[in-house]
Amino acid sequence: MVMRVGVVGGGQLARMMIAPAVELGVELRVLGEEPGMAASLAATAVGDYRDADTVLAFARDVDVITFDHEHVPQDVLAALVHAGVAVHPGPHALRFAQDKLEMRTRLAELGMPQPEWAAVSDATELDAFVAAHGGRAVVKTPRGGYDGKGVRVVSSGAEADDWFTALAEDGRGGSLLAEELVDFSRELAQQVARRPSGQATPYPLVETVQRGGVCAEVLAPAPHAGERLLEVAARLGVAIANGLDVVGMLAVELFQTTDDRILVNELAMRPHNSGHWTQDGATTSQFEQHLRAVLDLPLGATDPTQPWSVMVNILGGPAEGALDERFAAAMVDQPAAKIHTYGKAPRPGRKVGHVNVAGDDLDDVAYRARAAAAFFGD
Amino acid sequence: MVMRVGVVGGGQLARMMIAPAVELGVELRVLGEEPGMAASLAATAVGDYRDADTVLAFARDVDVITFDHEHVPQDVLAALVHAGVAVHPGPHALRFAQDKLEMRTRLAELGMPQPEWAAVSDATELDAFVAAHGGRAVVKTPRGGYDGKGVRVVSSGAEADDWFTALAEDGRGGSLLAEELVDFSRELAQQVARRPSGQATPYPLVETVQRGGVCAEVLAPAPHAGERLLEVAARLGVAIANGLDVVGMLAVELFQTTDDRILVNELAMRPHNSGHWTQDGATTSQFEQHLRAVLDLPLGATDPTQPWSVMVNILGGPAEGALDERFAAAMVDQPAAKIHTYGKAPRPGRKVGHVNVAGDDLDDVAYRARAAAAFFGD
Repeated sequence: MVMRVGVVGGGQLARMMIAPAVELGVELRVLGEEPGMAASLAATAVGDYRDADTVLAFARDVDVITFDHEHVPQDVLAALVHAGVAVHPGPHALRFAQDKLEMRTRLAELGMPQPEWAAVSDATELDAFVAAHGGRAVVKTPRGGYDGKGVRVVSSGAEADDWFTALAEDGRGGSLLAEELVDFSRELAQQVARRPSGQATPYPLVETVQRGGVCAEVLAPAPHAGERLLEVAARLGVAIANGLDVVGMLAVELFQTTDDRILVNELAMRPHNSGHWTQDGATTSQFEQHLRAVLDLPLGATDPTQPWSVMVNILGGPAEGALDERFAAAMVDQPAAKIHTYGKAPRPGRKVGHVNVAGDDLDDVAYRARAAAAFFGD
Repeated sequence: MVMRVGVVGGGQLARMMIAPAVELGVELRVLGEEPGMAASLAATAVGDYRDADTVLAFARDVDVITFDHEHVPQDVLAALVHAGVAVHPGPHALRFAQDKLEMRTRLAELGMPQPEWAAVSDATELDAFVAAHGGRAVVKTPRGGYDGKGVRVVSSGAEADDWFTALAEDGRGGSLLAEELVDFSRELAQQVARRPSGQATPYPLVETVQRGGVCAEVLAPAPHAGERLLEVAARLGVAIANGLDVVGMLAVELFQTTDDRILVNELAMRPHNSGHWTQDGATTSQFEQHLRAVLDLPLGATDPTQPWSVMVNILGGPAEGALDERFAAAMVDQPAAKIHTYGKAPRPGRKVGHVNVAGDDLDDVAYRARAAAAFFGD
């Protein structure tokens, strides 16, 4: 009997599930948004993930439905569940990744450490929050943001007027999320895989380096992290996975504050950029682990296979020189670099691939990963 | 520009090129023998690799043709070359993997260490060879053998009468290969990757354990191998790759004799069972390396990522219990085991998958790989 996993969304996360699916003998089927997506090799359907009939038809012949992204609407998810389809993560978990206000509310109920936050429904409420938090605040649209989009630092309520207007106009009313501007020394990410039966396995805590709101590099495990920090982060990740009943991969993006607390920044319920290093640096990659988790197979070991791994994203601008020439130059220069491409047309700032390097010495590993990535992208 | 590799043959070796092809951004196209082969996900054509028109049509839109096996006839290869197709390895190299007498002759010219051998054209000549080598000899059909087929130990010429008769009947005449029965302590394998431009990179020497003429396990690197043995084997592998002008992966199967010489047993010009450990235990897997080599891209680092790796083949008999139950049992028992399946119907003795485990302690690694594999197969 072949195990069949259906992935809604044809981006690079679906693409990177292909390799472990082939090796495990899992039949991967992808519903792409359009032809020629990153995961097109496994695409068995093309259509609109916001259309319940399209997604239901796609789901008919698979054992479980999972996702390349968190944007499938709740009514479509409900239709899948109603039709008896196994959906992992389920709608009740995904809503916490789809709506940042629901996430903050639920994490507060669970007692998780967070920045101070409030739901603000107009500029006056936002002004009050700003005044109470040192004259500045982060404002986020609860839905639809990614890679720094839908996030703004403001010093007055009026600076979010356009968003309040848009909220009023979309008919559902609703609020924006205001958060204190956290004084952090760095950003971290804690990944956890969890099965329907409850088994939850953390990965090592990593450091993520953002530039312009986009993940640039990941250092794994997080350097200068003591035993206690690693343990606290792993426990926090497992507690959130359990508390939100997540199935599959969960990424918890964290701030490490200048006074050494960790606070939850964002959640992602799918393989995540902060875990790409696991492809070449951990016993079980996050993509294999996601497949195991959604199929309710026992989870794999998450140990690093080498002391240090560094992942550097390739952000693609207009290509200078043919791709094979860039490959040749990067490979001659860095024979130990693992180059991963997404099959996406280059566009300034767009994530079109990444490079992983693993080894014994962090400085050397980071240097080599950056050197290899520099042959590609912007 | 996408790099396109066409693979003739749809078996597990082609299948295992899919994962690195996806990650590198190489478009892999496979000519399968029939629908539903191991590499069917990448199959763009189905047809007979002995038919020149079929292979020429398949080759039209790729940058290079390579192989899942060495059985493509020389006239088909010649037609490809004549049509201007890049073929790696080329026909002039492949003939040494296709015909064991040609291989022995050429290796002798290159001064490579080999068992004593002779071409024997009838039972009388074989009797003479047997008499001169202690009363026993190994007889091989020069073409078409694999996994112990076409190999026989005899103590008289009459024991190969059926093969002599078959040779006479096939119209081409020809001889059998007779070899001394080597007194060996173990079998080893040396892999080398080589580019058209001449760059040749050896992998660490490994020990292969055969049962019933079929590879059962591989230990990497070869245990109890001194610096000198490792160096001699690596140099021998590179010398053969250069001497035969191999492009792509070359596997040199070796005997280590009881008096500590190494002798060449067989050659394979493609990814090989002795290198499956590299998927989870080396910086660059043999499948990625093969793609790099045939595309004339710089070769990747071949260092082991962990001190020891052990590969155990899964030989498939009638399945007891559903596949997902076996997976679950193996994964619970051995969370660090990497399970690779070939998508092939189980049949007693047939290779249907393998398990890799890597780690610090050889005994522990071997135990865990064997334990995981035991949940599958015969």
